[in-house]
Amino acid sequence: MHTALQPVGDARHHAGGAARVAIAGATGYTGQELLRILSRHPRVTITAAMSSGSSAAASRKLPALARVWNGALTPLAPEALARDVDVVFLALPDSAAAELAPTLVDAGIRVVDLSGAFRLRDAAARARWYPDTRRVPAEVAYGLTERARTSIAAARLVANPGCYPTATLLALAPLVDSGRLVAGADIVVDAKSGVSGAGKTPSERTHFSECHGSLSAYGVFHHRHGAEIEQGVGGAVTFTPHLVPLDRGILATIYVRVAPGTTEEAIGDVLERAYAGSPFVRVVGAALPEIKHVAHTNFCDIGWRVDPTGRAILVSVIDNLLKGASGQAVQNMNVMLGLDEATGLW
Amino acid sequence: MHTALQPVGDARHHAGGAARVAIAGATGYTGQELLRILSRHPRVTITAAMSSGSSAAASRKLPALARVWNGALTPLAPEALARDVDVVFLALPDSAAAELAPTLVDAGIRVVDLSGAFRLRDAAARARWYPDTRRVPAEVAYGLTERARTSIAAARLVANPGCYPTATLLALAPLVDSGRLVAGADIVVDAKSGVSGAGKTPSERTHFSECHGSLSAYGVFHHRHGAEIEQGVGGAVTFTPHLVPLDRGILATIYVRVAPGTTEEAIGDVLERAYAGSPFVRVVGAALPEIKHVAHTNFCDIGWRVDPTGRAILVSVIDNLLKGASGQAVQNMNVMLGLDEATGLW
Amino acid sequence: MHTALQPVGDARHHAGGAARVAIAGATGYTGQELLRILSRHPRVTITAAMSSGSSAAASRKLPALARVWNGALTPLAPEALARDVDVVFLALPDSAAAELAPTLVDAGIRVVDLSGAFRLRDAAARARWYPDTRRVPAEVAYGLTERARTSIAAARLVANPGCYPTATLLALAPLVDSGRLVAGADIVVDAKSGVSGAGKTPSERTHFSECHGSLSAYGVFHHRHGAEIEQGVGGAVTFTPHLVPLDRGILATIYVRVAPGTTEEAIGDVLERAYAGSPFVRVVGAALPEIKHVAHTNFCDIGWRVDPTGRAILVSVIDNLLKGASGQAVQNMNVMLGLDEATGLW
Amino acid sequence: MHTALQPVGDARHHAGGAARVAIAGATGYTGQELLRILSRHPRVTITAAMSSGSSAAASRKLPALARVWNGALTPLAPEALARDVDVVFLALPDSAAAELAPTLVDAGIRVVDLSGAFRLRDAAARARWYPDTRRVPAEVAYGLTERARTSIAAARLVANPGCYPTATLLALAPLVDSGRLVAGADIVVDAKSGVSGAGKTPSERTHFSECHGSLSAYGVFHHRHGAEIEQGVGGAVTFTPHLVPLDRGILATIYVRVAPGTTEEAIGDVLERAYAGSPFVRVVGAALPEIKHVAHTNFCDIGWRVDPTGRAILVSVIDNLLKGASGQAVQNMNVMLGLDEATGLW
Repeated sequence: MHTALQPVGDARHHAGGAARVAIAGATGYTGQELLRILSRHPRVTITAAMSSGSSAAASRKLPALARVWNGALTPLAPEALARDVDVVFLALPDSAAAELAPTLVDAGIRVVDLSGAFRLRDAAARARWYPDTRRVPAEVAYGLTERARTSIAAARLVANPGCYPTATLLALAPLVDSGRLVAGADIVVDAKSGVSGAGKTPSERTHFSECHGSLSAYGVFHHRHGAEIEQGVGGAVTFTPHLVPLDRGILATIYVRVAPGTTEEAIGDVLERAYAGSPFVRVVGAALPEIKHVAHTNFCDIGWRVDPTGRAILVSVIDNLLKGASGQAVQNMNVMLGLDEATGLW
Repeated sequence: MHTALQPVGDARHHAGGAARVAIAGATGYTGQELLRILSRHPRVTITAAMSSGSSAAASRKLPALARVWNGALTPLAPEALARDVDVVFLALPDSAAAELAPTLVDAGIRVVDLSGAFRLRDAAARARWYPDTRRVPAEVAYGLTERARTSIAAARLVANPGCYPTATLLALAPLVDSGRLVAGADIVVDAKSGVSGAGKTPSERTHFSECHGSLSAYGVFHHRHGAEIEQGVGGAVTFTPHLVPLDRGILATIYVRVAPGTTEEAIGDVLERAYAGSPFVRVVGAALPEIKHVAHTNFCDIGWRVDPTGRAILVSVIDNLLKGASGQAVQNMNVMLGLDEATGLW
Repeated sequence: MHTALQPVGDARHHAGGAARVAIAGATGYTGQELLRILSRHPRVTITAAMSSGSSAAASRKLPALARVWNGALTPLAPEALARDVDVVFLALPDSAAAELAPTLVDAGIRVVDLSGAFRLRDAAARARWYPDTRRVPAEVAYGLTERARTSIAAARLVANPGCYPTATLLALAPLVDSGRLVAGADIVVDAKSGVSGAGKTPSERTHFSECHGSLSAYGVFHHRHGAEIEQGVGGAVTFTPHLVPLDRGILATIYVRVAPGTTEEAIGDVLERAYAGSPFVRVVGAALPEIKHVAHTNFCDIGWRVDPTGRAILVSVIDNLLKGASGQAVQNMNVMLGLDEATGLW
Repeated sequence: MHTALQPVGDARHHAGGAARVAIAGATGYTGQELLRILSRHPRVTITAAMSSGSSAAASRKLPALARVWNGALTPLAPEALARDVDVVFLALPDSAAAELAPTLVDAGIRVVDLSGAFRLRDAAARARWYPDTRRVPAEVAYGLTERARTSIAAARLVANPGCYPTATLLALAPLVDSGRLVAGADIVVDAKSGVSGAGKTPSERTHFSECHGSLSAYGVFHHRHGAEIEQGVGGAVTFTPHLVPLDRGILATIYVRVAPGTTEEAIGDVLERAYAGSPFVRVVGAALPEIKHVAHTNFCDIGWRVDPTGRAILVSVIDNLLKGASGQAVQNMNVMLGLDEATGLW
């Protein structure tokens, strides 16, 4: 039962000052962003930053990490994670997170999981896309912050959303809820992502000479983020991701059909109501947003256009490593700890 | 009447050897590509390359042009265009082409027009998007080469297609013709273009620091290429172009609904039949094409996927300056002159 | 006389709380960075942000600016600059700054000038490179923060250094001072800059399609930053800037001859002594720095290598818009106001 | 003795029509460029294209290769290389080429080796940089085409130059020969390369997100191309390569001291004399060349500036995969076969 939960981290925090956090997987792109944000966060102390490699390998990576954080990397050790820590961030592969997270929750630690292991509620969908997830703790919240603050505040485990679903659902979900979309009409999400979304491990697909000057679609009809988006809107969505030759950022172009008579103003009303009091969602209207407006920030900017025949197009942009990963993870931690959700994120 | 026309350029060509061609607007990106291709073309002689600026201004631009062509630029002079020339390429703004082209046709010159002035057949649509087009010559062909060789061979004026319509229609039009699409279902074309498509004139939108690391949609519900695409498929299409941080290339992602039971193989059959004997269209199937595969070539690569619920996605890629402009223009000239359509284009 | 000066802004600041600052030229890249930094700075209040255009033009630019600052732009008005303001930042063309700055100083306002108008002390050099600078106020400091804190604290006008000189002199000047360089030996500075260094006004040179995939040298033997670097080292330097296809960042590769027996450790000693207590200069040794390490920060990272024959190479990197412009400008303001020099810059 | 050699390949060629060529290492970037050029070359037939992987692995790579060549890849088999082939191109790692090349020469095959295995004449230097090169065939030519046509025509093995040495030596070597440089003065070569120069194997250094928006120096005082450049000029050179975020192209900025009174015109005379009749070297003078001018071509463009104090700067640009590798390799083959050296290279 979520209602009975207390934000325990928050309690410890107020008692002892700064919350104690650990990062598992500190050498990947999202791990490094977590280190950078949390090392300057006024209300937390980093007690451990861990890497899956040996400590020797971790040490070799230190020079670059030293530029974002002064501490030492330690080998990834589950027992260390459970010791003297209030919140653990998991920036790990799905399978590692699937195994670690339940154990940590059992040990009384609160977890923000940046993997996909616990994002899907439907058991069949989860079995298909995240087969390594064998046990789901009782109090899990899907961490799309602006739409789930109450359950995040109470959760023991927050499943931080995927980058594509974050950009898509922040724009699309309020419209679905509003009843302004034509029931049964196709929804197409054509999403474009910078290459950092593919992570830090070199591969042919992310080799500079393969990406520079090129552009490609991938995962057509077969991307786990499609399942996550469909969960978020409660129905079928055609989702196609593309790889774009830039480093950071996602732009999602969303094609929907709106009910007769729905104006651009009406769409604006829906979104402004949804995000009143949300510091990181900027509803920008017909001046369509660009990735440059949000890169290196935790903002999500949403614009839209409607034509007289009932077609509507929404454009939503985020920085995939911040609002699409580590920024939103810290935002969720802030909510879990009862802090202002923007703390440490400007 | 098209049927009575003889390919006169071809006749002169066989009599006198190489065809004589002129380029109006030789300093823009498409003009430079025309110079580069035609200066190495084994069956033509460039008799004039003209620039709209003064001859002094044209001279200042010569150092860069010298790298693609050894000749001298001359000021743009309509009378010179009509003298000793078999074919004129117009790489000019719409309004200039709208005025020049009919005069040249009257003077017996064959014209390949890279502007949009004569692309739309419907007078109302043309008045809206190309208001400067006041007179349309009698024998105009829409120059999507692979789909209009006969009319191109006979035409006095070839309206070279826009870059987005070229990429889109080569993939979409055969499917529309085949009857495999669900009638009335939405067609969404989400297209992404490199920045050279915006031309050579500097602007805030094409300033390096505005494009690099960014991505944006533009012309939503309001782009003249949307009208051209709708003309090509004979119905409504939702078309959204995007500006991508690369120099050359277009990738169009096309979302359609196919009739029940339509398989990927069936789509392949349609496209392979459509492009048998077409050297520049490569039907690549489920291995979706990337811009890198076609950059700096005259190819159009088309891939696709179909899912069991009847959704289909096509991906079509071209180099916007070659197959999307100057390459196709030379391909059309080859057809007009009765040459192998690939001459000078490898 | 510098010694008699009191940091007046600081006095006002302590009396009235936050210092009041104005930005002249708020719509350019450096102006926008100033707005972004100062709007979050805990010890200042922005009292005016001005643009040289008409107020109508300024308003049209507001949507983009709104993403970094909530205030309204006003037309650039010298009288407004002198009213109720402690410090003015000039992010203007050289000629405009040359005219405005002395007037402001006369009116008792302290000025941080991001233009080049007051950087050169030698009258002949200044007349050559900045002919519009007709009057130089008495108390001017050259604002390379780490090397001039005392004079900056006392100055009425701080000439904020150029981006190339900042990257070059932070690495090179301590070595020159140390006497470790071979007297009379050539010094070569081969510098590479991202395109934002060329400012926000579109031009052929900064057009996306001209820069992407290209690389060029410019200003060979004729760049005003060369004179500024020579002033900083007190002798001849061969300086060649290059334009690189990235947005933000400068990398300067510096070739010198060191005295026999000078080791890498000796160079390290010189630099570490020079920058002990300087939070924004990171002396990184043989692990040569990359632009990525400093982009979007106020850091300058310096690395070096020495070979047994007495050749030494230093590599220095900065973000040209931050440490090379607006970041250092705020750092200088902090010093002028007696604040911790890093305030507002993390 | 070179003088006694006959260009045997040429003899076979004239007898049997097209020369028969094989490519060892056809899946790397230089191998693919060789395939693309040679498959359209009017005077050769590709008899084998081989890959070091298993034939299954080679097959998996075929879809991409099919876009440049219609043939089938075969596993790399030395015995096949020696059968029915006039010329073999080795696009292999140094160690593989070091082992294969002498065997092929023994078997009467002419070899163009794109690796570094046979570039250094000095045994000590070769042992340091290419320790796997154990045997050097008798008739080796260093294949900087424009400077060694006679020895290339007669050679059994052409060591194709490195990309940096090609760009550098074409500009620098004629000046050294001319006696116009101040003896003993430092020569600094600051070179910048696109990422394709690092080859096709993914690595952290060539990962898109590490290169994009960044810039770095590498191999300082320790790059084997430095030894090759020093061999070419017969003296010490300070050579520093940099990795630039673009795909194709090298720009070398070369700093020298010229004898008193040497003008820009005098430099021009030296270079124009050196390259009269060389179709691929363009001497462009004070209009400094850019990478964009030569990308996707076999050109080398050379510009320069001289100042009154005797400092001179040369800027030389090439496409690293063409004039810096596969283009020059085919140019060398043309010379070996007695063909026009530009055949197949426009």
